[in-house]
Amino acid sequence: MYVAVMGFGTVGSGVAELIYKNHDSIVKKSMQDSLEVKYILDIRDFPDNQFADKMIKDFNIILNDPEIEIVVETMGGVTFAYDFVKKLLLAGKSVVTSNKELVAKHGFELLTIAEEKNVNFLFEASVGGGIPIIRPITQCLAANEIDEIAGILNGTTNYILTKMITEKQSFDEALAKAQELGYAEKDPTADVDGHDACRKICILSALSFGKHVYPESVQTEGIRNIKLSDVAYAASWGGVIKLIANAKKLDNGQVNVTVAPRFVPYHSQLASVDDVFNAVLIKGDATGEVVFYGKGAGKMPTASAVVADVIDAAKHTKKKKNFGWADAEENYVADYLAAETALYVRGTTDNKDAVIKALNDKIGAVRVLTRDGAPENEIAFVTNPDAEGKLRNGIESAEGLNVESIIRVADL
Amino acid sequence: MYVAVMGFGTVGSGVAELIYKNHDSIVKKSMQDSLEVKYILDIRDFPDNQFADKMIKDFNIILNDPEIEIVVETMGGVTFAYDFVKKLLLAGKSVVTSNKELVAKHGFELLTIAEEKNVNFLFEASVGGGIPIIRPITQCLAANEIDEIAGILNGTTNYILTKMITEKQSFDEALAKAQELGYAEKDPTADVDGHDACRKICILSALSFGKHVYPESVQTEGIRNIKLSDVAYAASWGGVIKLIANAKKLDNGQVNVTVAPRFVPYHSQLASVDDVFNAVLIKGDATGEVVFYGKGAGKMPTASAVVADVIDAAKHTKKKKNFGWADAEENYVADYLAAETALYVRGTTDNKDAVIKALNDKIGAVRVLTRDGAPENEIAFVTNPDAEGKLRNGIESAEGLNVESIIRVADL
Repeated sequence: MYVAVMGFGTVGSGVAELIYKNHDSIVKKSMQDSLEVKYILDIRDFPDNQFADKMIKDFNIILNDPEIEIVVETMGGVTFAYDFVKKLLLAGKSVVTSNKELVAKHGFELLTIAEEKNVNFLFEASVGGGIPIIRPITQCLAANEIDEIAGILNGTTNYILTKMITEKQSFDEALAKAQELGYAEKDPTADVDGHDACRKICILSALSFGKHVYPESVQTEGIRNIKLSDVAYAASWGGVIKLIANAKKLDNGQVNVTVAPRFVPYHSQLASVDDVFNAVLIKGDATGEVVFYGKGAGKMPTASAVVADVIDAAKHTKKKKNFGWADAEENYVADYLAAETALYVRGTTDNKDAVIKALNDKIGAVRVLTRDGAPENEIAFVTNPDAEGKLRNGIESAEGLNVESIIRVADL
Repeated sequence: MYVAVMGFGTVGSGVAELIYKNHDSIVKKSMQDSLEVKYILDIRDFPDNQFADKMIKDFNIILNDPEIEIVVETMGGVTFAYDFVKKLLLAGKSVVTSNKELVAKHGFELLTIAEEKNVNFLFEASVGGGIPIIRPITQCLAANEIDEIAGILNGTTNYILTKMITEKQSFDEALAKAQELGYAEKDPTADVDGHDACRKICILSALSFGKHVYPESVQTEGIRNIKLSDVAYAASWGGVIKLIANAKKLDNGQVNVTVAPRFVPYHSQLASVDDVFNAVLIKGDATGEVVFYGKGAGKMPTASAVVADVIDAAKHTKKKKNFGWADAEENYVADYLAAETALYVRGTTDNKDAVIKALNDKIGAVRVLTRDGAPENEIAFVTNPDAEGKLRNGIESAEGLNVESIIRVADL
């Protein structure tokens, strides 16, 4: 059987190397007589590479070669990837991708085409890098009704927050360090503003609850505004700040999906997930809480997930997988302001007693937090859980309180 | 499609209830028009049960009914289970089991029959209860060469050790508490002496490294002899005592497989797995370390894993899964005394300086540990890593040292 790889970047080159390195066991597990990479598509030249003889620049060679049954897409981005993948599926070829943006934006359409053409469209590597998550959700937990998913899905932001928590580095210092180590890109927007985690939780939500969630419908907040004072207050509260991607099924058929920094209590399994590690916690009605943990990115972990999908596609050439993933109707994602949560608030005031009394009147009792070295006029507190919009209105209208930071408290 | 359940105990009744409760989504995921439990086999009477009309006592009804395509075995034990399952597979029916003893003892033979008959023999629930482990190893990590597996695979012993560590209960007190809560059986041998964990690591080793490991070839030690003084020394060393089941591939083609209490450093992901929770850490050549965590037992978690296998068997009626599991030649499991490990030792002596000098001469430097309230003549230390047999010989021959406890140090 012949495979083509589109995109010879970090992940794509890892895929080619892994198929070469573990070739015999991969062939055996694929239940094929052979499994070879025939073409590698990239616009760049790699004259000295071990795979130089496989390099091509014309996508149509792959599209029109009937020997190619499976195509790996690791180009990233959406414009070309979407066009190419759609054409390949329509041509009856299975596609394996690590491209979370592609799946989050076009997953429903591409899965529908794959189903019509009776081929596979697989994307284990798009979430959690080398951590098996998608297959466990769709197969191992198939007997469960999944109630909720919560995860640390972005290694870059988790690294930055870990540095802020354990080494008291500011956000800017920690980001610079992450960039120096290659954990963060020069333009870190996709990571630090939560877009990467957003795409991943959209995919997990669709798989768990059966309907596509489009990234633009998700309340997405990043970690740029987290201050060391917030980290200190989280500690005095009894936890840490983590960027949590969350999807929860509501009784009315809607889902709550958010990406936002949250206070996570120390006793949660997610509190101790540090550095570039990722973890996903899944709550099923039968199995209870299950956690998957590992490195969420990196060349070989991600390539490993891609190749596992290639093996799966090779084994199931005649039998596609059905993810049961429908398109979403309007208003499928609930208004996040209606969801119940507790809020942490930091601000300044000239009259703490008056502010606390005003808050008590509007939103009930709050738990005041303290930290060493706080300025005289600083105030920080955690509310009881209530509808977020109601809490925010109450807080905004508390006279004499200048709010500087609001962070949700995770219900984990 | 019709299913039969053999054994209406905790897990079997959970299976029937789960298929009933999540019926529609299970049917959809199975890609069947229907999926019903037709028979439940049990020698006991359940006149008031909701499934009373399905109860039968004659195994041959299941064996001879051509409508039954999948049979769930949750009877436990080996004598009857082995006879029944073998007959069912030979009759061309797929079998799903939660019976780790059956798989550990007869997995190779039963898988071979299943392969010949082109049916499925699946056993996700036999390891880790509701935590997906077997499918992730065989499918999600398929592109990896797995190097090592280490797990906390028995919830009862982990509960007892947690009570000893966090509440300073003695082994006997903690065992009594576990029995009171139903976590331990009246005869706790299978759990506390490590046999249950041994069966599970045999299964994981076979799946990861491709050859059957028979329980009797595994060095298996339980936790009966752990004292609170050992727990205190582990803390002063920088970790906790956990019952670790371990399988590691050696360069010469052999495997090291052991079940034994081990010192686990606090920074290990397994150190914080407490109470009845289980966790499995898998080291793959591409993916690095991946950890799966959750409740390793319990009615609905285990039933959930069984039903996931039923769904898988229903989807693949014509295409069996191939686990690539061969029989083991003699000496496949390496002599545990040849494996390299560090050892913790506690004992008594009238002359500490002389003992430490003797140890230095025989096995090199040791790290002496201390604890509050230790008797004057107590000594405890940790060696450097070396072949276990060599270390034990050196320790035994150190004059004036009465050894009371030896615990291996985990390399995690």
